[in-house]
Amino acid sequence: QGILERLDAGEIVIGDGGFVFALEKRGYVKAGPWTPEATVEHPEAVRQLHREFLRAGSNVLQTFTFYASEDKLENRGNYVAEKISCQKVNEAACDIAREVANEGDALVAGGVSQTPSYLSCKDKTEVKAVFRKQLEVFMKKNVDFLIAEYFEHVEEAVWAVEVLKESGKPVAATMCIGPEGDMHGVSPGQCAVQLVKAGASIIGVNCHFDPETSLETVRLMKEGLQAAKLKAHLMSQPLAFHTPDCGKQGFIDLPEFPFGLEPRIATRWDIQKYARKAYDLGIRFIGGCCGFEPYHIRAIAEELAPERGFLPEASEKHGSWGDNLGMHTKPWVRARARKQYWENLKPASGRPYCPSMSKPDGWGVTKGAKELMQQKEATTEQQLKELFQKQKV
Amino acid sequence: QGILERLDAGEIVIGDGGFVFALEKRGYVKAGPWTPEATVEHPEAVRQLHREFLRAGSNVLQTFTFYASEDKLENRGNYVAEKISCQKVNEAACDIAREVANEGDALVAGGVSQTPSYLSCKDKTEVKAVFRKQLEVFMKKNVDFLIAEYFEHVEEAVWAVEVLKESGKPVAATMCIGPEGDMHGVSPGQCAVQLVKAGASIIGVNCHFDPETSLETVRLMKEGLQAAKLKAHLMSQPLAFHTPDCGKQGFIDLPEFPFGLEPRIATRWDIQKYARKAYDLGIRFIGGCCGFEPYHIRAIAEELAPERGFLPEASEKHGSWGDNLGMHTKPWVRARARKQYWENLKPASGRPYCPSMSKPDGWGVTKGAKELMQQKEATTEQQLKELFQKQKV
Amino acid sequence: QGILERLDAGEIVIGDGGFVFALEKRGYVKAGPWTPEATVEHPEAVRQLHREFLRAGSNVLQTFTFYASEDKLENRGNYVAEKISCQKVNEAACDIAREVANEGDALVAGGVSQTPSYLSCKDKTEVKAVFRKQLEVFMKKNVDFLIAEYFEHVEEAVWAVEVLKESGKPVAATMCIGPEGDMHGVSPGQCAVQLVKAGASIIGVNCHFDPETSLETVRLMKEGLQAAKLKAHLMSQPLAFHTPDCGKQGFIDLPEFPFGLEPRIATRWDIQKYARKAYDLGIRFIGGCCGFEPYHIRAIAEELAPERGFLPEASEKHGSWGDNLGMHTKPWVRARARKQYWENLKPASGRPYCPSMSKPDGWGVTKGAKELMQQKEATTEQQLKELFQKQKV
Amino acid sequence: QGILERLDAGEIVIGDGGFVFALEKRGYVKAGPWTPEATVEHPEAVRQLHREFLRAGSNVLQTFTFYASEDKLENRGNYVAEKISCQKVNEAACDIAREVANEGDALVAGGVSQTPSYLSCKDKTEVKAVFRKQLEVFMKKNVDFLIAEYFEHVEEAVWAVEVLKESGKPVAATMCIGPEGDMHGVSPGQCAVQLVKAGASIIGVNCHFDPETSLETVRLMKEGLQAAKLKAHLMSQPLAFHTPDCGKQGFIDLPEFPFGLEPRIATRWDIQKYARKAYDLGIRFIGGCCGFEPYHIRAIAEELAPERGFLPEASEKHGSWGDNLGMHTKPWVRARARKQYWENLKPASGRPYCPSMSKPDGWGVTKGAKELMQQKEATTEQQLKELFQKQKV
Repeated sequence: QGILERLDAGEIVIGDGGFVFALEKRGYVKAGPWTPEATVEHPEAVRQLHREFLRAGSNVLQTFTFYASEDKLENRGNYVAEKISCQKVNEAACDIAREVANEGDALVAGGVSQTPSYLSCKDKTEVKAVFRKQLEVFMKKNVDFLIAEYFEHVEEAVWAVEVLKESGKPVAATMCIGPEGDMHGVSPGQCAVQLVKAGASIIGVNCHFDPETSLETVRLMKEGLQAAKLKAHLMSQPLAFHTPDCGKQGFIDLPEFPFGLEPRIATRWDIQKYARKAYDLGIRFIGGCCGFEPYHIRAIAEELAPERGFLPEASEKHGSWGDNLGMHTKPWVRARARKQYWENLKPASGRPYCPSMSKPDGWGVTKGAKELMQQKEATTEQQLKELFQKQKV
Repeated sequence: QGILERLDAGEIVIGDGGFVFALEKRGYVKAGPWTPEATVEHPEAVRQLHREFLRAGSNVLQTFTFYASEDKLENRGNYVAEKISCQKVNEAACDIAREVANEGDALVAGGVSQTPSYLSCKDKTEVKAVFRKQLEVFMKKNVDFLIAEYFEHVEEAVWAVEVLKESGKPVAATMCIGPEGDMHGVSPGQCAVQLVKAGASIIGVNCHFDPETSLETVRLMKEGLQAAKLKAHLMSQPLAFHTPDCGKQGFIDLPEFPFGLEPRIATRWDIQKYARKAYDLGIRFIGGCCGFEPYHIRAIAEELAPERGFLPEASEKHGSWGDNLGMHTKPWVRARARKQYWENLKPASGRPYCPSMSKPDGWGVTKGAKELMQQKEATTEQQLKELFQKQKV
Repeated sequence: QGILERLDAGEIVIGDGGFVFALEKRGYVKAGPWTPEATVEHPEAVRQLHREFLRAGSNVLQTFTFYASEDKLENRGNYVAEKISCQKVNEAACDIAREVANEGDALVAGGVSQTPSYLSCKDKTEVKAVFRKQLEVFMKKNVDFLIAEYFEHVEEAVWAVEVLKESGKPVAATMCIGPEGDMHGVSPGQCAVQLVKAGASIIGVNCHFDPETSLETVRLMKEGLQAAKLKAHLMSQPLAFHTPDCGKQGFIDLPEFPFGLEPRIATRWDIQKYARKAYDLGIRFIGGCCGFEPYHIRAIAEELAPERGFLPEASEKHGSWGDNLGMHTKPWVRARARKQYWENLKPASGRPYCPSMSKPDGWGVTKGAKELMQQKEATTEQQLKELFQKQKV
Repeated sequence: QGILERLDAGEIVIGDGGFVFALEKRGYVKAGPWTPEATVEHPEAVRQLHREFLRAGSNVLQTFTFYASEDKLENRGNYVAEKISCQKVNEAACDIAREVANEGDALVAGGVSQTPSYLSCKDKTEVKAVFRKQLEVFMKKNVDFLIAEYFEHVEEAVWAVEVLKESGKPVAATMCIGPEGDMHGVSPGQCAVQLVKAGASIIGVNCHFDPETSLETVRLMKEGLQAAKLKAHLMSQPLAFHTPDCGKQGFIDLPEFPFGLEPRIATRWDIQKYARKAYDLGIRFIGGCCGFEPYHIRAIAEELAPERGFLPEASEKHGSWGDNLGMHTKPWVRARARKQYWENLKPASGRPYCPSMSKPDGWGVTKGAKELMQQKEATTEQQLKELFQKQKV
C-alpha cells in the first residue's frame, strides 16, 4: 500500500531519523558540508542505519540524498579525494534504501532539499533543473513517493514540489521553519497553503526546531489550511534537541551548533510526549530529523502502540516505560521500572558550570538584519558576508 | 605487535567505546540485563559498531562479551525466546572482533566482567570456574590479550586475573570504582597493588564515573603502585557522561540512570580534554566505556595526533577543532571553525526546568548503609533487598 | 517644583522601592495580607526605609498606603490584636513620608491600589467610595500628587483615576500587567489609552513582572498612546526579581512566590541595565516595586548620573561599577573593580539541585481558564475557587 | 543572666545577622573597606538594624565594630571626608547596641576581628596592642561579653583571645574557615583546641561559607575538642549564601563576590534547616553573618520555638511555614500555606543564561599558591601582588 492509501485509511505512519547527524557521529559524514557521499564510500554504514530505523518502527525509509543535488556536491570537491558524481550518490542511496525496505514492509521516499542555486539567486528554471536531475534518478529507481524537505524559503519549496509532481507520484513537503515563518516572512499558514496549491499531499515541518516548537508550527499550518478550506495530511520530523532558546533560524544559530549540542539531546520519554502530542494534533506522519537515533523512533512506535495495535521489532530489546529495569541487580534501580518515574524525571545535566539556555549567535537575530534577510537580495553569499561584517562593527 | 610490546615502546594505545549503551540505542541490547546475545542474533550490528570504532582510531577491539558469563546469561532466559548458549555468544563475539580487527591492524582483547556468582557469595573455586569457561573460548579463538573489567570488588577482580593469567597471555584489569575505592572499602591504591601482584600488566578503571573522576582514581592507583614499588601500565575507560554528583556506586545510583542520561553526554571537546589529561598523567591505554560513541574515540585520536604522528581514518570526515565549519553556508557558523571557540563553550542544556545536579538514589549513599556494604555478607541479593526496605522506612 | 513641572522639563524622576517586601523581611509586614499597619505600629521602621530610599536617590516618596483601603484592612482583623482604623494608617503614612521628604527635596505621593470591593463585584459607586475615603486623608495631609497603582483590571484603575482627579492634583496610574494585558484581556495599549482619557498624566506599570517584561509592556502602552494620538509621561516600577517564566498573572503564580524568590533577586547591575533601557524607551519616572531595596534605587541613580549630572547621597558608600573594590585586601578581588567585569558576570545560583525556570501554578496559565478569566464573572472569589478545583481534577 | 549562665543551663542563644552586608544594601557601608563608621555618621540606621534583629529573636547584639581596629580605620582615610577616630566609632557602636538591648533582654557583645597589622606581619606585641585599644572601649562601656571573630589564621585569633581574656569577661572565638582549616593549614580540630587553651569559652565559625559547610567545620572542631578532652560551647554564624563551590578562602574568591551574590541568598526555609542541623549537632549559640537579614534570624527562632517554648516578637508578622498565605486572594497561593510545600520547593533562579556553580577566582585555588600561602611570609600585601601576577602569566 502506498503512502496516501495508508494515511487516507487513518494509519499512523512512522518516519525515520536524521542521517547526517547520526552518521557524523559514526564517522561517515562531515559536518559543515553535510553531504551524503557515504552512500558510495561506505554503503554498509548507511545500510546498517536504515536497518536500525526499520527495526525501530520506521514505515518510511528516506533515501540518503540530503544535500545531494549536483550544485551542492560540486562545492565539496575540495575534501573528497576522488569526485563522486551526483548520479552515483543518488542511485546508491536508492538502492540501499530499497534493499533494507524489502527486509520489512517499509516504503522508500526519494528526497530533495534546498539548493545553493536558489540561495545564490539563480532563476526558477535553473533551480528546477537541479531538482529534476535528482528526480530522474528517483524515477529510474522507482521510489514509492517523494519528499521535498528542509526548505527555508517557501518559494523554493513550491518549485521543488512542482518538479516532483511531474513524476505523478505522491509528494510530501516539509519546511525547516518555526512559528515565525519562512526567511522571507511568509507565515506557516501561508506556506502550507502554497505547498498544497503546488501539489503537495502531505505537508509539515522538519529539522531546525525542537518537537514542541515544531508542533506549534504545524498547528499554525493546519489553521492556515482550514482557513483556506484546503486539505492535506500533516507531517512532523523535528529535531531531537531541546531548543527553547532558538531564534527564527533555528538551532543553526545556537552557539552549541553543531558540536556542543549533547546536553540538549531528547530522552526517549521526551519523544514519547512528542509522539502523543503530534497524534493529538492530528499529525499522522510522525518522524524525526537531526538528533533522532533509532531508540527515539522506537519511542514513537511504543507511545502509539495502543493506537496501532503492535510494537516494533526493536521493542524486543526494550521494556515499555523502563519495565526491563525490574531485572537490574540493584534494588533502587529496579524501583525505576515504572512509567510515573520516567515521566516525571527532570534530568540533570551534570554540568553545574553551564547555563540552561543560550543566546543565538549571528546577525540572524538582530532586528535590522532580520528585515534585510526578508529581502531576497540579501541572501547571496557575498551579501551575507558583508552584512555579517557590518553587524560585527 | 602485541599490547605489551606497544606499551613498552611508549606507544599510545586507543581503546574502544561502550557497546552495551551504544547498541541499546541502536535497538540490539536490553537495558537491565545488558547482555550481549546480539553477537548471535544480529552480528551485522555488532560488526558495524566494531568497524566504526576501528575507523575512529581504536587499536584494541574488545570482544562483545560483557556480562557473557554463563551464570549471567542464564538469568536472562525469561526474555529471549530461544536460549543461546554462553559458548555461542562468546565465540561469535570473538569471530566478529577478529574479522573487523583484520580490516586494520587492531588487536583483539577477550573480556570478562563481574559475575552474579560472586555477588551471591559463591566461593573462589566456583567463581573462577565461571571465568575459566569464557577463557576457554578466548583461547580457542586465540585472542591477542585479555581484559578483566567492570569489577566492583577487588577480591573478585584478583580471582579473574588469576584465571586469565593461566593462559599465558597479557592481562589488563580495570575496576569500576571511584576515588573512594571498592565496595568493601579497599582504596584505589590498594586495589592496584593487589591486581598487579595477581599478575595484571595493565591496570586502571572503566565505567561508573566521568573522565575527571576516573582520572583521579587512576592517579590514586598510580600512587599506590609507586608506594609499593610496583610497575604496571595505566589504562582508563571512563563514561562519556558528566557525573560530578555520583556517590560511591557511580552513575548507577543517579536518578537518570539509564534512560535519562542524555543531558550528561560528553561533547567531543570534553573528550579531547580527557585524552590530554590522561596522557599527562602517564596513562597510555586510553579508551572509553558507556556513552562513548565512535566520535568520542576519534576525539581521543585527534587530541593525541601530535604525539602519535597520524590521524585516524574517520578524521577524513572531521576537521580538527571544527575547522570543517569553514564550509558552512551561514557566516556566523563559519566563525565557529576554531579551537578557541569550542574549547571555551559552556554548552546549554536547553532544559530550563531541569537542575544541573542530582542526588544519588538508594541506600548506597547513606552512611550506615555504606558501612554495611563493606561487610561482604550484606551484598547478597536478598540482603540488599531487606536493607533497602529498611532504609526506606 | 511639582511632579509634572519636573517631567515636563525633561527631568528624570526616580521612584522608590517596594515597601511590603522590604518590611516583610525586616519583620513589620505580614505576607498574605500585605497590609501597612506598620505606619502606626512601628513608624520608626517605615521612616528608616523611606530615609534609605531618599538617600539612595528617590525623588518621590510614596505613602506606605498599599492595601490600606478600608475594605482591605477590615479583612485583617483576625491577626492584629487591636483594630487600627483605616484613617489612622493612612494619616500616619502621610506624616512619615512628609517628614522624611523634608529631609531632602522629595515629593510625597499618596497611593491607592486595587480593592477587594472590585474583586467581589461591588458596583462603581461603592468602589469609588473606597478610594474617596483614602483620598480624603491625602487631601487633608496635602500630598504633592497621587498614584493609582497595582491594578489588574483597567476598569477599576479608571475608576480610581476618576476619583483621584477630583482632587485637582496630578495623577499617575500604573497597572500590574504584562504584555498580554489586563485580566479581562484589554491590551496594554488600550489600558494606556483609557487611563489617559480618565485623566492620568503619567501612566505605566508596576509590580508583577521583571524589568525586561515590564519595559515591553510600557513599550506597548506607548505605542497605544501614539496610535490614539494621546500624550502622557511614562513610568515603570517593576519587580527586582527575574521572572522570564511568568504567565499572565505575573510572579504571584510562580511556585516560589512569596517565600522562595531569593535566587531571582536582581543584582545592582541588572538594575543599571533596566534604568538605561527605561531611559532609552523614553520613560522618565523610573522606580521599582517588590524586591527593590535601597541599593537597587541607588543603581538607577548611578546609571543615569551622566544624564542628571549628580549622584545620590548614598553613593558616598558606593563606587561606580565596583571601583571601591580597589581597596580590598585580596588582589583578585581588587581585579573586579571595573565595569566590564560586573557587566558581563553571569552570576551562579550556588544551587545545583534547582532549575533555572519554573512552571507557573494554578489555572492562571491554562488556556481554558485564561478565557474564563477574561469574562468578568469568573473573578469573584467563589468562582475562582470552583474554577481552581475543577482544573485540579 | 550572662552568656555562660544561659549556655551552661542548656538554653539556645540566638545571635544576630551580618551588619556590613545588610547596611551596604541600605546605603551606609562601603564594600571593599567594609568599615563601620556608620555608628557615628548614621546611628539611626545602625540602631534600626539592631532593633530588627532583636525583634527577630536575637539574644545577643554584637557591637557594630567589625574592622573597627585603629590600623584598619586608618587605611580608609581616602574616602571619608573628615576623619572619625577609632575610639568614637567603637564607643558609638557600644552605646547603640546597649540602647537597643535594653529594649528587650538581649546581651551586648563587643567584637574584634582580624587586623591589617597581622597580615602585614607585625609582631605579637603590636597586634595585641591593636586589640587592646578596642577592648578598652568595651570595658569602659561595660559590654556583657566579648567575641573574637572573622579570623583566617588561628595564631592571630589566639592572640585576640588572650587580650580579651585580660578583661575577665567571657570570650567567644569564631574563625572564618572551612573544613580545610586555617590559611596556614591548621585543621579545624586543632584551631578549636588552641582557642580553648587560650581561654575561649565558646568556639566555632563565622562568615566565609554557607551553613552546610560551616556546620561541617564546627563538627570537625567538636571532634578535635573531644579528642583533646577539652570542653567548650559551640557557636555558628555562617553566611546566608549558598556556596558549595567555594575553595579554601570561602566566598571571597567566588566571582560573584560581593556584588553578584543575589542568586545565592538563602531562603527562610534553608535557614530553618540550618537551625535544626546546628541544634542536632549540639551547637547552642546559633546566629548568622553576611547575608543574614532579620527574617533569617527569625527563621532560626521559629525552627527552634518548640525547644525554646516561645516565638520572637517579629513572628506576629509571620506564619509558621507560610500559614499566613491562607489569607491570600488567589486560591493557588493559599495552597502554599503548608510546611511540606516550602520544605520541598526547589526554587528556580529565573536566570536561564546563568550557571549554578562558579569556579573560584585567583591563585587561592591553585595548588602551588596554596602551599605558598601556608608559609607566612607570602601573605604580605606586596608578596600577594607579586604572587598573583606570577600566576596570571
